[in-house]
Amino acid sequence: MKLKHYLWIGLLVMTVILCVLPGYSQHVHKKLGFQFSTVGALSAGIYDGMTTFKDIKQQGNFGLGTLEGLDGELIALDGKFFQVKGDGVAYPVKDEMKTPFAAVTFFRKERTVRVKERMTYEGLQQAIDQQLSSKNLPYAIRIQGIFPYLKVRSAPKQKPPYPPISEVIKRSQVIFELRNVQGTLVGFRLPQYFKSVNTDGYHFHFITSDRKAGGHLLDGEFLDTHAEIETLRDWHIALPNHASFEQATLN
Amino acid sequence: MKLKHYLWIGLLVMTVILCVLPGYSQHVHKKLGFQFSTVGALSAGIYDGMTTFKDIKQQGNFGLGTLEGLDGELIALDGKFFQVKGDGVAYPVKDEMKTPFAAVTFFRKERTVRVKERMTYEGLQQAIDQQLSSKNLPYAIRIQGIFPYLKVRSAPKQKPPYPPISEVIKRSQVIFELRNVQGTLVGFRLPQYFKSVNTDGYHFHFITSDRKAGGHLLDGEFLDTHAEIETLRDWHIALPNHASFEQATLN
Repeated sequence: MKLKHYLWIGLLVMTVILCVLPGYSQHVHKKLGFQFSTVGALSAGIYDGMTTFKDIKQQGNFGLGTLEGLDGELIALDGKFFQVKGDGVAYPVKDEMKTPFAAVTFFRKERTVRVKERMTYEGLQQAIDQQLSSKNLPYAIRIQGIFPYLKVRSAPKQKPPYPPISEVIKRSQVIFELRNVQGTLVGFRLPQYFKSVNTDGYHFHFITSDRKAGGHLLDGEFLDTHAEIETLRDWHIALPNHASFEQATLN
Repeated sequence: MKLKHYLWIGLLVMTVILCVLPGYSQHVHKKLGFQFSTVGALSAGIYDGMTTFKDIKQQGNFGLGTLEGLDGELIALDGKFFQVKGDGVAYPVKDEMKTPFAAVTFFRKERTVRVKERMTYEGLQQAIDQQLSSKNLPYAIRIQGIFPYLKVRSAPKQKPPYPPISEVIKRSQVIFELRNVQGTLVGFRLPQYFKSVNTDGYHFHFITSDRKAGGHLLDGEFLDTHAEIETLRDWHIALPNHASFEQATLN
């Protein structure tokens, strides 16, 4: 090859590097929580599927939510999305399925809080609280292990006109009690000032290690808990471009 | 030139185009509101400068806020940032100056709501409300014109230990009454469900057309108002990486 050819190749390689580098920097881990719609809208009965899980997956591989028609509890873990329907069974979620509400992040464990003693759910919350450096930041939390007792719930799919969530819970929530169950709790602890847009405090969804069952955590007993925690520094709220959200009466 | 040279040049041009195109697409207008810290933290007296305006400018060219030590009212308009100090005078804000709270967006007018009649501030809010398609979305609003009467305020810089904002307003807020004044109101209308993280409803800061005075809008009289409005579909909350925010008692 002639010198000229080396110059051309050098120029080409430099161009590719200069173009690709900024792209890489945008993929730096962001410690960013993302929510689609608000818990207030969900509480008010805005259960229409207003975005696809294909879109939600762009925003995180870990989190919770629900599905169109309040059709069960959503759990996202390691990039896989599951729907725990009213029968308590976990089904895989397809990209083209839709959601009225989800909260996700790209989870990366920062630290582990260990609570050795046997604890109620309330006790565990207090024990983790004591280990957090601040009550004013959002945290993503993953708890893997064998749980002495978990009380979880789901709900069957609702039909329009949708009743508010308080009615659904009163009339048709289904409760499952799991004992010595192995699996993962996926969730968040959000500061009190999130209460008007999301759920403040702790909020977990559960899935068994065989990915066959789960639900929204109501209560439990915990022993030798390893809570893996990531502090989130940014929170993004995406609002539905959908008439049922825009016209809802939100209090 | 030989055919080979044309091939090399073609390859180089293609590479540049393929690399640059995605960059352009990321600069698509985002209709994204951004806030640094929370109004709750500000109310609680967290007035430390926790980020620079250089960083805030990355997130918007339009908006409002305050400065380190609650040192006056911030107005951002057309990419220029101004500080209206306790003397009512507008000073340019330098990039290296810091803020405890700001809310900004890259503003692009979508529509204009015209209210011809003479109105109080409260009346104007109701008149604009009637023209909005939804009460559940955030709006950025710019009102340029000559205002029959504006009552604006600022406050002098506070010293640590910082008193809560209610104390500052009670003890040292300075009120300016402007008549037949030409300038621009810069602000937002946020849904009620924003109340725990920001200010719900209307929130405006004012700057005169000569950029010499302004303040936080308390009241006014309006005539033939042209309110330029952009609907925001996303809202980003950036939380301060700063001990005074993390350790604050927020209710």
